[in-house]
Amino acid sequence: MQANFKVEKNNMPKQKPDEKSLGFGQYFTDHMFVMDYTEGKGWHDPRIVPYGDIALDPATMVLHYGQAIFEGLKAYKSDEGKILLFRPEKNMERVNISNERLCIPPIDVDLTVEAIKAIVEMDSDWVPSAEDTSLYIRPFIISTDPFLGVRPSFTYKFMIILSPVGAYYPEGINPVKIYVENNYVRAVKGGVGYAKTPGNYAASLKAQMEAQAKGYTQVLWLDGLEKRYIEEVGTMNVFFKIDGEVITPTLEDGSILGGITRESTIQLLRHWGVKVTERRISIEEIYQAHEDQKLEEAFGTGTAAVISPIGELNWNEKIIKINDGKTGELSKKIYETITGIQYGKVKDEFGWIQEV
Amino acid sequence: MQANFKVEKNNMPKQKPDEKSLGFGQYFTDHMFVMDYTEGKGWHDPRIVPYGDIALDPATMVLHYGQAIFEGLKAYKSDEGKILLFRPEKNMERVNISNERLCIPPIDVDLTVEAIKAIVEMDSDWVPSAEDTSLYIRPFIISTDPFLGVRPSFTYKFMIILSPVGAYYPEGINPVKIYVENNYVRAVKGGVGYAKTPGNYAASLKAQMEAQAKGYTQVLWLDGLEKRYIEEVGTMNVFFKIDGEVITPTLEDGSILGGITRESTIQLLRHWGVKVTERRISIEEIYQAHEDQKLEEAFGTGTAAVISPIGELNWNEKIIKINDGKTGELSKKIYETITGIQYGKVKDEFGWIQEV
Ligand SMILES: Cc1ncc(COP(=O)(O)O)c(C=O)c1O
Ligand SMILES: Cc1ncc(COP(=O)(O)O)c(C=O)c1O
Repeated sequence: MQANFKVEKNNMPKQKPDEKSLGFGQYFTDHMFVMDYTEGKGWHDPRIVPYGDIALDPATMVLHYGQAIFEGLKAYKSDEGKILLFRPEKNMERVNISNERLCIPPIDVDLTVEAIKAIVEMDSDWVPSAEDTSLYIRPFIISTDPFLGVRPSFTYKFMIILSPVGAYYPEGINPVKIYVENNYVRAVKGGVGYAKTPGNYAASLKAQMEAQAKGYTQVLWLDGLEKRYIEEVGTMNVFFKIDGEVITPTLEDGSILGGITRESTIQLLRHWGVKVTERRISIEEIYQAHEDQKLEEAFGTGTAAVISPIGELNWNEKIIKINDGKTGELSKKIYETITGIQYGKVKDEFGWIQEV
Repeated sequence: MQANFKVEKNNMPKQKPDEKSLGFGQYFTDHMFVMDYTEGKGWHDPRIVPYGDIALDPATMVLHYGQAIFEGLKAYKSDEGKILLFRPEKNMERVNISNERLCIPPIDVDLTVEAIKAIVEMDSDWVPSAEDTSLYIRPFIISTDPFLGVRPSFTYKFMIILSPVGAYYPEGINPVKIYVENNYVRAVKGGVGYAKTPGNYAASLKAQMEAQAKGYTQVLWLDGLEKRYIEEVGTMNVFFKIDGEVITPTLEDGSILGGITRESTIQLLRHWGVKVTERRISIEEIYQAHEDQKLEEAFGTGTAAVISPIGELNWNEKIIKINDGKTGELSKKIYETITGIQYGKVKDEFGWIQEV
């Protein structure tokens, strides 16, 4: 694969971190993938180079106007030592959804999936093997014109960096306490909520900090218009199991990121014969279902944790416990199936896995 | 002033561009101001160094999560060769408003105003003297932890860069055609609209491009909730003169940037005895006023253009011409007074000007 790309080898490889204390997103591998865009010339010069600083003019547009997008996926090591990717083409397709909204020129999905495979293969000895560890893959695009003025850039950089990451749940999958956000808004119809762009995350920090100060792990975002309809939980999509049916907010309004774990969860549940509905769902409905003893499970979905069970909600100081604050049966089953497929332990019936 | 800051002189000063073709934001001076923040240590090491690239780890948080803010103001050269700043303390106060929303530690307003003066003095021979030219000043803060994960950074860089800029209206102040945006939303209550943060500008690009493709200079943003109430025009605040009264949208909902030109315009108008009201104003009201022949003038306000008269509005293909597409009397008077004060030609009765 790497044969397609120019490779400059890093002759000073770093010492690898202890696999037991990787944490998340703090260590980076020996190489990175870079590709440039110039108006008129298109995307060009795809290459693998030693991981290292990039030199940016202080007027570089991304620093001022935030025209940028990113992605996140993982490479997993199977027991037999194979390196597996989970639906990488979905991430690269989402790059183009984000790009379109941010006025960034589209990328070639096939080429960038090959790029992911090539850079992961290059640094394959960085894929950790301890249980539940993985290699986090961060493709991203930044606008690079050194220019102060609000317009789309004429030049861009597409990069892929890699970070070995630890188990998300070192003590096993664990329900979290969630604060229902009534004040701050993450995204709104007509905005950029469905794009994976830096501004969405910057805008979310304050709510997250305030929720944490109150003892909650994350916030549950409500819609920006009525503060009624549920959107996402932190940086995950959210699911509720009510009276046997699984419900997740619809993507129709464009204020929610279309998660790949979300899509996979829906597919899996339907495959199992569980009824799944994508629709608007209000916070009142959740509280009513809880009162009627029909709220069985709630969980977030995302690449980082796969499934994050919700054990408690606080909405205007009305606190409810879900499934006695314990991980639900279905949450556990989805978690085990998806991670099983990712690590090559469970048969991949859906064609989700690509080997590096 | 500079004595307060460590100075490393640029021994390879650049050739200065022709003052007749400066444009906006494309040339940068010989020096820049830099100051670092480290958790526990606070803001430290304020210094003037040669203008040049900054080296950033590709995992630098600003590139991924957009935790950053910026400002924009100008230095003007008077006929006597003095260099004047317009209310720089207001910009530095606004930095802290933006910082607070973006979870960035506050800066010292006095110190950073001194920094602006020091860096402008350092590169004072870059302040152009041709009519209506100026030196654009861009203070900004970026989050600099090399870390992939959504949380506020523990380290930041505050920088000031300078760019000589041309006359905004080379052929004199000119009304523009504006498209009323019905689809995209810039900001919403509970979001970050009142902060000067990169994500707001990234989110605005697509609407701007579509309006330009239709032959309009900019968009008029409506509120995200009802798409009724007027917010801003492009990256300017907006004013309407209806039946002798001047009306501008209220800042109450937090979705609009509190412009310094806006504040100065309000103060000036009241000083002149013109009635000014800050309140919600709907697009229907504007169209009704036009039908009743009471819509006298409309204009945007901002540092770049000072006053930008609106000559035409297109709302759902209903097109109205304002003041026959000509610059209104009051618009012209505000423009001439503010620019007059900025260039030291009109007496500064308000204490707005600081000399470098
Ligand atoms: C805002 C947001 N929502 C949802 C998700 C979940 O998406 P995915 O399942 O593709 O990781 C993410 C993380 O990528 C996210 O950042
Ligand atoms: C979104 C937005 N609104 C309004 C303004 C006008 O503000 P000021 O008058 O301080 O330049 C600006 C420009 O700074 C802006 O970016």
